[in-house]
Amino acid sequence: MIDAKHIDALKQIVGEEDVKIDKPHLRAYSYDATKEHYEPDAVVFPANEEEVSKVLKYCNENKIAIVPRGAGSGFTGGALPVNGGIVLALEKYMNKILEIDEKDMVAVVQPGVINADLQKAVEAKGLFYPPDPASMDYSTIGGNVSENAGGMRAAKYGLTKDYVMSLKAVLPNGDIIRAGKRTIKDVAGYNVAGILIASEGTLAVITEITLKLLPKPKLKKTYMGIFENVEQAMNAVYKSLAGGAMPVAMEFMDALVVKALREKLGVNLPEWAGALLVGDVDGNVDEEIDYQLNILEKSFKEEGAKEFRIAANDEEANEIWYARRNASPSITMYGSKKINEDISVPRSKLPEALNGIYAIAEKYNVLAPCFGHAGDGNIHVNVMVDGSNEDEVRRGYEAVEEIFKLVVELDGTLSGEHGIGISKAPFMKLAFTEEELNLFRRIKNAFDPNGILNPGKMGL
Amino acid sequence: MIDAKHIDALKQIVGEEDVKIDKPHLRAYSYDATKEHYEPDAVVFPANEEEVSKVLKYCNENKIAIVPRGAGSGFTGGALPVNGGIVLALEKYMNKILEIDEKDMVAVVQPGVINADLQKAVEAKGLFYPPDPASMDYSTIGGNVSENAGGMRAAKYGLTKDYVMSLKAVLPNGDIIRAGKRTIKDVAGYNVAGILIASEGTLAVITEITLKLLPKPKLKKTYMGIFENVEQAMNAVYKSLAGGAMPVAMEFMDALVVKALREKLGVNLPEWAGALLVGDVDGNVDEEIDYQLNILEKSFKEEGAKEFRIAANDEEANEIWYARRNASPSITMYGSKKINEDISVPRSKLPEALNGIYAIAEKYNVLAPCFGHAGDGNIHVNVMVDGSNEDEVRRGYEAVEEIFKLVVELDGTLSGEHGIGISKAPFMKLAFTEEELNLFRRIKNAFDPNGILNPGKMGL
Repeated sequence: MIDAKHIDALKQIVGEEDVKIDKPHLRAYSYDATKEHYEPDAVVFPANEEEVSKVLKYCNENKIAIVPRGAGSGFTGGALPVNGGIVLALEKYMNKILEIDEKDMVAVVQPGVINADLQKAVEAKGLFYPPDPASMDYSTIGGNVSENAGGMRAAKYGLTKDYVMSLKAVLPNGDIIRAGKRTIKDVAGYNVAGILIASEGTLAVITEITLKLLPKPKLKKTYMGIFENVEQAMNAVYKSLAGGAMPVAMEFMDALVVKALREKLGVNLPEWAGALLVGDVDGNVDEEIDYQLNILEKSFKEEGAKEFRIAANDEEANEIWYARRNASPSITMYGSKKINEDISVPRSKLPEALNGIYAIAEKYNVLAPCFGHAGDGNIHVNVMVDGSNEDEVRRGYEAVEEIFKLVVELDGTLSGEHGIGISKAPFMKLAFTEEELNLFRRIKNAFDPNGILNPGKMGL
Repeated sequence: MIDAKHIDALKQIVGEEDVKIDKPHLRAYSYDATKEHYEPDAVVFPANEEEVSKVLKYCNENKIAIVPRGAGSGFTGGALPVNGGIVLALEKYMNKILEIDEKDMVAVVQPGVINADLQKAVEAKGLFYPPDPASMDYSTIGGNVSENAGGMRAAKYGLTKDYVMSLKAVLPNGDIIRAGKRTIKDVAGYNVAGILIASEGTLAVITEITLKLLPKPKLKKTYMGIFENVEQAMNAVYKSLAGGAMPVAMEFMDALVVKALREKLGVNLPEWAGALLVGDVDGNVDEEIDYQLNILEKSFKEEGAKEFRIAANDEEANEIWYARRNASPSITMYGSKKINEDISVPRSKLPEALNGIYAIAEKYNVLAPCFGHAGDGNIHVNVMVDGSNEDEVRRGYEAVEEIFKLVVELDGTLSGEHGIGISKAPFMKLAFTEEELNLFRRIKNAFDPNGILNPGKMGL
C-alpha cells in the first residue's frame, strides 16, 4: 500500500485532481478484457511527458509499482496492477493526434489516441494506417505498440511494428529518450524502438509515436471460399499465398463457428459448409484485383472449395464480413465461459495445428471452435466451457496447456497478437529456454533495475 | 596480444587448421571497405554454432576481444579488430542456405551466405528477397542483418529488418538462443531479434537467420526523369510518393554526378540536365505498371522535369541503370580521396538537405557530389578531395562534420544504411543525448558484460 505521503507527492506533480484514490476510480481501473480484477492504490493521470517523467522518477526512488494503461482492452492482463501501486492512465490527456504529414507520410500521435480515430483522420487525407486489431474502435495506439497488435490486414500489411518509425519514451529513472527517427532508414545506435514494441509496458512508458503511413489503395473487393472441411481450407491458405496472392485479409472460420453462425444468427451458408475463408483484396486498378481473385479462386477450388463468392457491391461485402465479425459473439452458444488463446504457427503447419487442437478438445471432452487470421497463421482458439461446471473448467484449462505444447512442437508461438501478460506467463517455460528467459531478465534490468514498471508480467 | 596458451585452446575447439596466426591471414582479415587496417591476433573459422558457442565462452572467460566478420565489405569499420583479439570469420564454413520453404515462404540461412546467392536461389522458385544493398554480390546476410542493410528497393520493400523473422545467436557467455519465430506474428517475450538487427556484432554472434520471402512480381519497368536542378527533383520525390506512387526504387543523381557520367563515361544525357531520378516500378499486371508510371510522369513534370523516359525493353532499362550503377565510379574524377557518408532525412526535407550540403561544400571549398536512394530520403554524400593535399583533406572532414550537424537539425540520422562502426562513432554525441547513450551502454552490458564482442564500436 502506498502511504499518504506518496499520494501528496504525486499530487504535487500532476495536480490534486489527477490523482484518484476513491473506490469508484480504483475499481474502474482494476480490470481489463481478461475480466480479472486487481485494484491499484491510486490512479494517476499525467498531462504530458514531463509529468510522466516526474512520476516515474518519484516512483523509482520510492520503489512504487507503475502500470501504464491505455484503454485496458488487452486480453492477457497487461494493464492489470497485480501488485497494486499506481495505474498511470494515459487516455485522459495524452490522446492527441499531433501531426499528420502528407509529405513525409507519417503520423505523430500520443499513446492514448484510439486506433480507429487515427484510421479515420489519415484516410481523410488519402493515407492509410493498416494495423487493424479487432479492438480498433476502443484500443489505443500506445497499447497497440506495447502489444505489437496485428489484425486482419496483417496478412498483406504486417503488424504495428512494421509502422513504428520512432518512439519517445520515459525510462523508470525519469530519463526521456527518443528511439528511432522520422526517416525510412536509420541504423545509428541500437534499435531501442524495436525492443520497446511488444514489451507490454515493462521497459518504459511510451509518450509519443511516429508512424509510417501508406497511400490508400483505390480499390477493394471481398471474397469468400466455402469448404467442406478445415483441412481443405488450411491447404488453400498456403497454396494461394505461395501461388502469388497477397490478399489484405484471409480470415478463417471452422465448422463449429459456421454452425453457430447458421443456427444462432441465421447466416446464409450451405448445410455442407465445414470451413470458410473470407477476406479482401485491394489494389489501384481493376486488373490487379482480378489477378488476385483469380489466384484465390483457382487455389481454393483445387483444394476442394465448392463455392467461391465475390461480393458484387458493398452490401454483399458487408454480408460476407458480417459472418466474420460475428464469429466471436456467435460461439457463446457453446458455453458460458470462453478460454481464448491466439496461437500462431507457420502457415504450412495450419492443417496439423487445427487437427491437433480438435483431437485435444475431444480428449478433454470440450468444444474448441476456432477462427482467426489464417493468412498469417494466427488462430484464435476458443475453448468453450460451462463456467458453473468446475470439472469442465478444469478440463478446459488442461486442454489449453496441451494446445500450447502442440503449438511449440509445430514451431509456433504462444501468442500472435495478445501478448503474455499474466494469462500466458505460466507457459513461458514451454516456449523459452532458461538461457532465453535469463536474457529477458537482463534486458528488463537494463531498463528497469528496480522492477517498478508493470511488475509480475511476462513470466520474468 | 593473445598468448600461445589461448591459441592452443582455440585450436582444441575448432581444429588446428582453423586458427590462423600467420602474417598473410592476419593481414587479409585486417581491413574492410573503409580501407583502414587493424590486425587481429588470430583468425578463427568456426564450422558450426557449437564451435561458435565454445569460442565465445572461452574468450569471455579470458576477456579476449572477438570481432565477428562476414565479407568485410562494410563502410564504417564494423568488422575491424581495432583492439586486436580474434576475428571470428563466418564466411568459410557457415555459408549454407539451409532451406527455402515455398509453403511458408521463408528461407533459413547461415550468416555467411552471400546476398546475391540467396536472391538467385529464391527467384528460381518464383520467390523474392527484396533487400539489395549495393554490395549484394559479395556482402553476407549475416553482415546485412548486423547493419540492417537497405538498398535500392527499400523505397517500396523496406529494409533487412522487415524480412528477419527469427535469428539464432550465441551470447558472449556461450548461451545459444533463438529470437523470434517462423511465424508472421509473434508477441511472446521481448523482441530480441529486433535489437540484434543493426547491433553491428556488439551483442551476440548470429548463427542462423530465418527470412520472410514474397512472391516475385511478374512485371517490371524502368523510368528516368531528367530535371534542370536538384530542387525540382527532390520536390518530385515526395510529391509522387505522397500522390500514391510506390516505385521499387527512386534513385537520385545530382548535377556533379550527371556531369561526371557525361564527361567521363559518355552517358547520353542532355547538356541542361542538373538532376536525375531513375528507378523501377513493378506489379503483376500491365495496368498497375501504367498506373504507377502515370503518377510518376505527372508529378515529375509538374515539378519541372523536361524529360520522362520509360525503357521500352531490357536494353533501354540497362542503359538507364548503367548511369546509376556508375555514379560512384564516375565521381572519382573530382578527387583521389572520397569521404562518403550515407545520411538520411525525412523525405520532405530533401531539398533543404541538399541545398545545405552544397552550401557547406562551398564554404569549405570542396566538391560534394550526391546520389542515392531519394525514395526513402537516404543520400550518399561524397566529399571528394585530393588525398595528397593535407589542407583539403582537413577541410573535407570539417565539411562532413557540419553536414552531420545539418542532418540532425533536419530530424535526420547519421546513417541510413552503413552503420556507425568507428567511422561515425565520433558523431554519436551529435545525434544522441547522454541519457540515450547510457541506455545503449546498459543494453550492451545486458548482453556482453565483459565487453568482448566487437569492442570500440558504435561510440559506446
